[in-house]
Amino acid sequence: MNYYSAPIAKLIDEFTKLPGIGRKTAQRLAFYVISLTNEDAYQLATAITVAKESIKYCSICTNLTDADQCNICTDRTRSDEVICVVEDPRDVIAMEKTKEYKGLYHVLHGAISPLDGIGPEEIKIKELLGRVGETTVKEVILATNPNIEGEATAMYIARLLKPLGIKVTRIAHGIPVGGDLEYADEVTLAKALEGRREV
Amino acid sequence: MNYYSAPIAKLIDEFTKLPGIGRKTAQRLAFYVISLTNEDAYQLATAITVAKESIKYCSICTNLTDADQCNICTDRTRSDEVICVVEDPRDVIAMEKTKEYKGLYHVLHGAISPLDGIGPEEIKIKELLGRVGETTVKEVILATNPNIEGEATAMYIARLLKPLGIKVTRIAHGIPVGGDLEYADEVTLAKALEGRREV
Repeated sequence: MNYYSAPIAKLIDEFTKLPGIGRKTAQRLAFYVISLTNEDAYQLATAITVAKESIKYCSICTNLTDADQCNICTDRTRSDEVICVVEDPRDVIAMEKTKEYKGLYHVLHGAISPLDGIGPEEIKIKELLGRVGETTVKEVILATNPNIEGEATAMYIARLLKPLGIKVTRIAHGIPVGGDLEYADEVTLAKALEGRREV
Repeated sequence: MNYYSAPIAKLIDEFTKLPGIGRKTAQRLAFYVISLTNEDAYQLATAITVAKESIKYCSICTNLTDADQCNICTDRTRSDEVICVVEDPRDVIAMEKTKEYKGLYHVLHGAISPLDGIGPEEIKIKELLGRVGETTVKEVILATNPNIEGEATAMYIARLLKPLGIKVTRIAHGIPVGGDLEYADEVTLAKALEGRREV
């Protein structure tokens, strides 16, 4: 016996497809949507289609944007001499929240991972090389994730860029601020030691 | 500075309004929606509007349905001599999942709660009385929640129905199956003792 009428069952199914949403949460969300005003439900549905339809890759840095160029690339107050290379648009948000970085970005949309069949051609490395060749970039900061794929990607890009005479840097690895030495893993601790600086 | 382009920010805002969804989860959901195919994103948006537009109250039991009468009220294999009164459409699902109950339902859409300004007129008690008066109902099972509001609502309905010569019952309170006596609260334990039955 089907407990729900068809439109509710369909909505629960759709919510269940979202990441981190199980059947119980999907059910709660579905009943919440039904309890909304028509106006509010319509707003939610429209936000989904509008976001999906209007968001594309920035023609310069391949970050997500609803214009041809993203609002970071078009921001004339930012330095165009530094490019920070990240794996994911969410990493741009994370970097921006530090309020410390005033250069541009390049979003790779992934990392090199031979096991998953992702080679250098599957991510936006070609676009990065194009940018570096054309513009006045002096430094490329590699801010890919500190895991095997991220490190491999950083090494790969570094090797391509160094012959062009560009300064290539990697973000520091070490103990997180507020972290505890006792609970840090050995690799992180070793990296922290290796990257020690004079005070 | 606004980190997200407008359509993403709007979508995150909309997801944040959903119950149990914080900003971080909303952000993850928004990026997931953008990663979907157009087809899949459209399906999600459509499921929301279709569910919202097509779902209304069953004209008999006020359960949620996309037809004039819900598929429980129109199921001729079910007994029309018993009505189980619940607070919420979700309680109907919970009861149905037991596969033990073969009667009909009545959904109150709330419970009497003077503190929240919800009196007997704000919930579907009038509709219940109408049904009981017209049909061949022999028993009304009060399955409102075992809290102050649910108990008050059950008592209120019982007082209205008893003069009509209808058997009015309340679901049992006691130790949950698989529960542990040691961890049961005093009130539940007292109810379990009070409701003891000969074996």
